Amino acid sequence: MKKMSLAAAAVAGLVTALPAAAQFQKPGDAIEYRQSAFTLIASHFGRVAAMAQGKAPFDAKVAAENIAIVSTLAKLPLTAFGPGTDKGHGTEAKAAVWSDAAGFKAAADKYVAAVEKLDAAGKTGDFAQIKAAVGETGGSCKGCHDKFKEK
Amino acid sequence: MKKMSLAAAAVAGLVTALPAAAQFQKPGDAIEYRQSAFTLIASHFGRVAAMAQGKAPFDAKVAAENIAIVSTLAKLPLTAFGPGTDKGHGTEAKAAVWSDAAGFKAAADKYVAAVEKLDAAGKTGDFAQIKAAVGETGGSCKGCHDKFKEK
Repeated sequence: MKKMSLAAAAVAGLVTALPAAAQFQKPGDAIEYRQSAFTLIASHFGRVAAMAQGKAPFDAKVAAENIAIVSTLAKLPLTAFGPGTDKGHGTEAKAAVWSDAAGFKAAADKYVAAVEKLDAAGKTGDFAQIKAAVGETGGSCKGCHDKFKEK
Repeated sequence: MKKMSLAAAAVAGLVTALPAAAQFQKPGDAIEYRQSAFTLIASHFGRVAAMAQGKAPFDAKVAAENIAIVSTLAKLPLTAFGPGTDKGHGTEAKAAVWSDAAGFKAAADKYVAAVEKLDAAGKTGDFAQIKAAVGETGGSCKGCHDKFKEK
């Protein structure tokens, strides 16, 4: 019984600790997942960015709601760039995502840090802070796309 | 000045109160958005369902994390079935979504209520409660798909 328990624990630990690539049955599923996450992030970030750019009226509550969704979703696509997920579904990810893994991680970390600031700004409801954080977040998106995403 | 303020308030109110179809520039954007949301919901719900079905080891923490994501996302796709979003991008939504709007709303309400129960079950960490709520949520997905989604 002890052996079985250890084995079960090992399997459970593996499932929990493994990068989320293990959560996808096929590489194409991971690609579709990360694209879906980015689509939602772009949509909700875009609604806040429109306010920051004066293209939509600023509403602190709506901004906060959209930022909260961005914040919840921000890290999800990063779990779906595991080894082997460069094909199996149409993708605009450049090979550099895997060949320059350190560079990709640095760009991703910058984006995650920017979204954390955006999240904090959203909670203040202050337009100037949200605007600044939108600029930094947008810059982190662009910085990563320039290097790691096909145009 | 008072007139301008009122006008600004009216515009802000409109943006806030309008169905989220107004959040999308083109019908195809709404279709892509709702499909993306459903892809993420299915992925994270699937991870919990696998535990409920004994296909993956049960981990209350991981289950709760995934349920929290499902819960955050659950209503988002429902904001993207506005009038005119039956085309503009490949879609499996049947015409009944719009021709039987009351039926679609009833099916959607059932799903939202099931996810609320799932959310509560996730917070208990209790396997039996999660399993029951997964069953009800999965049933609500199928109930809607049977009537409103192409096979």
